[in-house]
Amino acid sequence: MKHFTSIHDVTDLHALLTEAAEIKRDPFKYETFGRHRTMGLLFFNSSLRTRLSTQKAAQNLGMNTMVLNVNEDSWKIETEFGVVMNGDKAEHIKEAAAVIGKYCDVIGIRSFPSLKDREADYSESVINRFIRYAGVPVVSMESATRHPLQSFADVITIEQYKKTPRPKVLLAWAPHCRALPQSVPNSFVEWAVAAGYETVVTHPEGYELDPSFTTGAVIEYDREKAYKDADFVYAKNWSSYTQYGKILNNDLAWTCNAKNMALTRHAKFMHCLPVRRNLVVSDEVIDSPDSIVIEEAANRVVAAQTVLREILKEQNG
Amino acid sequence: MKHFTSIHDVTDLHALLTEAAEIKRDPFKYETFGRHRTMGLLFFNSSLRTRLSTQKAAQNLGMNTMVLNVNEDSWKIETEFGVVMNGDKAEHIKEAAAVIGKYCDVIGIRSFPSLKDREADYSESVINRFIRYAGVPVVSMESATRHPLQSFADVITIEQYKKTPRPKVLLAWAPHCRALPQSVPNSFVEWAVAAGYETVVTHPEGYELDPSFTTGAVIEYDREKAYKDADFVYAKNWSSYTQYGKILNNDLAWTCNAKNMALTRHAKFMHCLPVRRNLVVSDEVIDSPDSIVIEEAANRVVAAQTVLREILKEQNG
Amino acid sequence: MKHFTSIHDVTDLHALLTEAAEIKRDPFKYETFGRHRTMGLLFFNSSLRTRLSTQKAAQNLGMNTMVLNVNEDSWKIETEFGVVMNGDKAEHIKEAAAVIGKYCDVIGIRSFPSLKDREADYSESVINRFIRYAGVPVVSMESATRHPLQSFADVITIEQYKKTPRPKVLLAWAPHCRALPQSVPNSFVEWAVAAGYETVVTHPEGYELDPSFTTGAVIEYDREKAYKDADFVYAKNWSSYTQYGKILNNDLAWTCNAKNMALTRHAKFMHCLPVRRNLVVSDEVIDSPDSIVIEEAANRVVAAQTVLREILKEQNG
Repeated sequence: MKHFTSIHDVTDLHALLTEAAEIKRDPFKYETFGRHRTMGLLFFNSSLRTRLSTQKAAQNLGMNTMVLNVNEDSWKIETEFGVVMNGDKAEHIKEAAAVIGKYCDVIGIRSFPSLKDREADYSESVINRFIRYAGVPVVSMESATRHPLQSFADVITIEQYKKTPRPKVLLAWAPHCRALPQSVPNSFVEWAVAAGYETVVTHPEGYELDPSFTTGAVIEYDREKAYKDADFVYAKNWSSYTQYGKILNNDLAWTCNAKNMALTRHAKFMHCLPVRRNLVVSDEVIDSPDSIVIEEAANRVVAAQTVLREILKEQNG
Repeated sequence: MKHFTSIHDVTDLHALLTEAAEIKRDPFKYETFGRHRTMGLLFFNSSLRTRLSTQKAAQNLGMNTMVLNVNEDSWKIETEFGVVMNGDKAEHIKEAAAVIGKYCDVIGIRSFPSLKDREADYSESVINRFIRYAGVPVVSMESATRHPLQSFADVITIEQYKKTPRPKVLLAWAPHCRALPQSVPNSFVEWAVAAGYETVVTHPEGYELDPSFTTGAVIEYDREKAYKDADFVYAKNWSSYTQYGKILNNDLAWTCNAKNMALTRHAKFMHCLPVRRNLVVSDEVIDSPDSIVIEEAANRVVAAQTVLREILKEQNG
Repeated sequence: MKHFTSIHDVTDLHALLTEAAEIKRDPFKYETFGRHRTMGLLFFNSSLRTRLSTQKAAQNLGMNTMVLNVNEDSWKIETEFGVVMNGDKAEHIKEAAAVIGKYCDVIGIRSFPSLKDREADYSESVINRFIRYAGVPVVSMESATRHPLQSFADVITIEQYKKTPRPKVLLAWAPHCRALPQSVPNSFVEWAVAAGYETVVTHPEGYELDPSFTTGAVIEYDREKAYKDADFVYAKNWSSYTQYGKILNNDLAWTCNAKNMALTRHAKFMHCLPVRRNLVVSDEVIDSPDSIVIEEAANRVVAAQTVLREILKEQNG
């Protein structure tokens, strides 16, 4: 594995899941594998799980870690080309990426979308320019359009809990007070489909995801039909892709609550966290024994460690 | 030791002080004791000594450390239950604590009081909810009502300098330009009494601490009488507990100055730092050979390392 | 080496460059040299290269590292003496330095000038007071008037690329939209002269550096004459020293562009970064094969590691 920005960087998901299970059993099995290697974690945005789990994953492999809050600790980054840099951005991404690539053997990057300019966001300029100029492997710690370490952890979690070979996995839109990225849903659908699950997405009209991410999934506007007999419900808000970045709906009937969950086959409740209680999910559901959000978060270390090990394998040759 | 939030978590202070002395002599004696263990340091507030000394203590034991400025690095935390989370708080403490507990073997938390709602502050909701939901040991790095790592370091320091078996230890209120918590004085009195010192507290009327913390100490309103023959003077400002969070007095006669110190038995000067010079203490006093504030701060590493070792002992079984 | 704040701390630059070359060849040769040692990195200002390269240098030597953004993570620092501390500064530099000196075996400090009060800036109060009160070696990670780790890396880089024993090295002023410190140019000239290069400085009238830094260098106001036959061009903006902190000139003819570079002997282009493209340097020049800015930044690790090793040598005795 050279870089890790989406499911498309995974050649054999089944093999990767087997490795993940092995790492979960024995997190320190490869504790010298990353010796003399440094992972840089660059945050353009807030992070809790990703920040801690990726750091820990690298440390479990014996890597050194350096964390940088780019905008606060260093300089605002210019990502456009050919401009006269006389504004508030002090450093160009070409230099920033190339320099950090000299200090780090692997670079993790978190960069949210603007939710204002769809074309710009979906071009993934930040992570793609880092890949182009850093000269070392780049790991997405959530980019404008995907959150692959989260999705990998999600699949690890489903594998752990599933009772049938091909569970029905529902991605269920839920209301939220702020406009959120489509990265988690985009990415989740890609991975769920790749894992071979019966993947269903439900949302109000206007919340259709970019169809290039939902190939192989069923879009079901009838929420009750969607929840019916689901084995896993992944609740998640996202803002509109078609009316880009807009909030079109606040209907609390879409909250993942006991009424909706009653339609399922005792589905496990999933969410990437952080989650707005009683907006995205009711207390009742997230506090129930069927809620597996904490284990899902715990698997973020497993996912990151498995990915880093793949990358180090390639580097170690 | 399961958690460390106050003197009440210490079963044998004498034994703990013996261990501290041993760790002070040889800081690297247990340098592999925390191998494969991660300490998370969560800061809801500013910190210099605690941040560096606790990190160093964990590193001296061979632990990995991860530092998180909660509000800046991650998400604002909701601590109330049953609320609809449609405000500025993106994550509930139940999830935050449980998730961090999956990534860390020990969690250190710094969380100051609001100084607005006494009942809320004294309920210690942040640290208590972390204890309830994290599933791993929690170490207070200063909570709303106590600063036990500081107090432990204070007692280590007094043991180091005392010339009589039962020194007279004075906690002397001093003026300040801002409203400060009662955590350091509350905690100091508890530890000084537990250590068997003759413990005296002096302050203007209206600055009475919560009496549940001062059992065993003498409250002496007459400042001169209080300073008289003291062996140690711990100067400290705090805001009013009775008129909660208020500043009632700015009288510079309460500054720990040469005139007050002249009444003592060549008392050592102590303060937890940071200290406002010429407000809480005069330059003359803090710069004198009897000032032991730097050694006191140095002992923060010893205190934290001793506590972490106790916790790891229990974890290692 | 006791402290490292300027070329004056280097007794034998030639020997230091030989060591640097050795460390560059084998970065992990001394990987246990700093065992049980902690480096504290204190930032009063933004940093990318310095932050990451110095951390990495310390880690390559087996040191533990602790990073502190002083103003954000801890308390604002009072540097004046004798004041009543009733403003926004909660801690005095005397205590801050002494305490950090108890937690760290080496302290790195970044502290920019105000660019308002020349005398205060050039007195280097922050770093000098840390040296005075910390009790441990202090390494400048850029102070008000110098950036010696950068300059050392610059000389390492020139040694790597030079084709003649005594290359012509030009420090060329360039325009900028903000008022910048003189630290990089001051320091670069000192090191270039000490390294024995033919050192030329060119700038518009009014941008004369403090002459105590430019001894041994030629000041050439005629820009074309200055660029003529240069082997290395170090472009850099700085604000006026004589009209302290002022921007006197915005003439884009001073931008390091292809026209200026055409006068040189195929000069290598250098800059400390971050650099404002198309203001300080044209895209054409920085993107050309003669641009060595990334290698120059990479050498920051080598410079820091060599300096830290010298300091540890002295500590290890």
